[in-house]
Amino acid sequence: MTRKKPDIESGEDRLIARYFRPLALNPGALALADDAAFLMPPDGHELVVTTDAIVAGMHFFPADPAAAVASKALRVNLSDLAAKGAEPAGFVLALGLPDIRPRWLEAFARQLAADARTYACPLLGGDTVKTKGPLFAAVTAFGTLPRGMMVKRSGAKAGDVVMVTGTIGDASLELHLRRKASPKWKVSRAAATHLAQRYLYPEPRCALTLAVRRCASAAMDISDGLAGDFSKLCRVSGVSAEVEIGKVPLSSAAQSALAAAPKLIETILTGGDDYEIVCTIPPQYLDQFRALARDAKVAVTAIGRIVVGKAPPRFVDAKGIPRSFMRRSFSHF
Amino acid sequence: MTRKKPDIESGEDRLIARYFRPLALNPGALALADDAAFLMPPDGHELVVTTDAIVAGMHFFPADPAAAVASKALRVNLSDLAAKGAEPAGFVLALGLPDIRPRWLEAFARQLAADARTYACPLLGGDTVKTKGPLFAAVTAFGTLPRGMMVKRSGAKAGDVVMVTGTIGDASLELHLRRKASPKWKVSRAAATHLAQRYLYPEPRCALTLAVRRCASAAMDISDGLAGDFSKLCRVSGVSAEVEIGKVPLSSAAQSALAAAPKLIETILTGGDDYEIVCTIPPQYLDQFRALARDAKVAVTAIGRIVVGKAPPRFVDAKGIPRSFMRRSFSHF
Repeated sequence: MTRKKPDIESGEDRLIARYFRPLALNPGALALADDAAFLMPPDGHELVVTTDAIVAGMHFFPADPAAAVASKALRVNLSDLAAKGAEPAGFVLALGLPDIRPRWLEAFARQLAADARTYACPLLGGDTVKTKGPLFAAVTAFGTLPRGMMVKRSGAKAGDVVMVTGTIGDASLELHLRRKASPKWKVSRAAATHLAQRYLYPEPRCALTLAVRRCASAAMDISDGLAGDFSKLCRVSGVSAEVEIGKVPLSSAAQSALAAAPKLIETILTGGDDYEIVCTIPPQYLDQFRALARDAKVAVTAIGRIVVGKAPPRFVDAKGIPRSFMRRSFSHF
Repeated sequence: MTRKKPDIESGEDRLIARYFRPLALNPGALALADDAAFLMPPDGHELVVTTDAIVAGMHFFPADPAAAVASKALRVNLSDLAAKGAEPAGFVLALGLPDIRPRWLEAFARQLAADARTYACPLLGGDTVKTKGPLFAAVTAFGTLPRGMMVKRSGAKAGDVVMVTGTIGDASLELHLRRKASPKWKVSRAAATHLAQRYLYPEPRCALTLAVRRCASAAMDISDGLAGDFSKLCRVSGVSAEVEIGKVPLSSAAQSALAAAPKLIETILTGGDDYEIVCTIPPQYLDQFRALARDAKVAVTAIGRIVVGKAPPRFVDAKGIPRSFMRRSFSHF
């Protein structure tokens, strides 16, 4: 059997050309027509690299909108870059597809393009593979910052103020709602919309990048729950902390939930998917940090203080009594 | 319910600490205890980035040794770097696991460590996620080279000599053997071992990196079959080519197969998984390329020549008759 016109383009090539080439605007991406991309940090800068994968049925629901899957895949990585004080420089995507659904792929690629523009983080390359299992999207994102300026988890010192961005617990309350047949509190329509939006479209705090880089002694993004993630920061920094649960910033939706079902504080503090930043600010930088955050239009809230010690941070209630958690952070394993 | 000792470490943290932290020897990896890694190309150098994912049941057999899965995941990416003329600088790994099998993970991590050492490509970071589907491993690898020196697919010019490394078709013959109940040729024990080894442990031609960078006008690695991949190179370069099928280098195992079943030439030329380099060398660099390849102990073979034109390259037999293929390259889609 022969063909008059050899099919030079494989199915994967066509898929890439159709859906992803329009996103590859950066010259280093070589229009996704090469084996690799090139990338050059500005002089005196270094590269920050992070990778996070999301899997259907684990990190999102298979029926979630394609746009939400695209946003989550990229934004969870941008959140890491922001927490490290790095400006986005580009990303690559390894996409595992159980099948080819053109409408799904179009919506996925459209949102990925929109996010790449919004966060100035162009697609540099990728790989599209078939899987017999659930869809997965593994993004590796690159950021740049002046040499040696990456904000680590390890720099917190006793006396530093513990700050978090945005509000905590919205995404985990949404997950709670989706998993339970009937919620334990009356959820208004506005609250339901808010919580769903927060779960589906995490907001990486890229606007706060400079403030974190200039002012934070340590920082990380909150993906597996504030309690557990902040415990990791303290451990790596060799310090302890006291956090006032009552100061943890909550959306009005989360406040309503908590008022009706106080036990939800556990879900809020340990559920994860927040993609907010928790960072530690030495007192002398506090005013500057607040000012830069105000300019960046990102809400920041002081929730506690770093103290000397090796014990995990204490989360204390209004009476000063430390609260224990069944688990401090979310894990699929 | 409370616990005396809070479980700060999640299952994923323990898994990373146990299996992958020992691999994170590079200071930029921060012992895998941070959100991100940092990486600095030497002054005057740029970064080359490539990503390739492999999925059980697609790119390897679920029962393949864990060590082979580790090697394939990393080496298919190193092969891209070598073809671009870039020295390995590090990699990140997104690993999707259906379950935790300690012996499998130990063997996987051990081989990954061995390969990272062999190819001087340290683990910088990663993400370990659970999946309800088949295991997947998405590697993003980084290489460095002097600014502007990346060898692209697009530089081939009429008159350039087409060269390939190593031998072609071994891995696709192994795949052919695994898929058919009885092969069409008598496979000796030595041949069977050779073909299996070539399929399980691709050999990235990192030793040829400098030769490619100094001498090649265009290059790519062969993952989806020589015929199809080289057609892509010609198309992006805006040229055609004439390749003599009889000159394509074959192992003795592949020669035996072909002697017994001449139709296997199609499998050999289009089956893929070769992870050899096909490149085009301007005549004035040919001697230098051969000398550098000899020093690097990598076999290189001239198989044809670039010609003016837009048609896909012609693969001609001993009588000069062009051969057609049912398909030019392998695709899962």
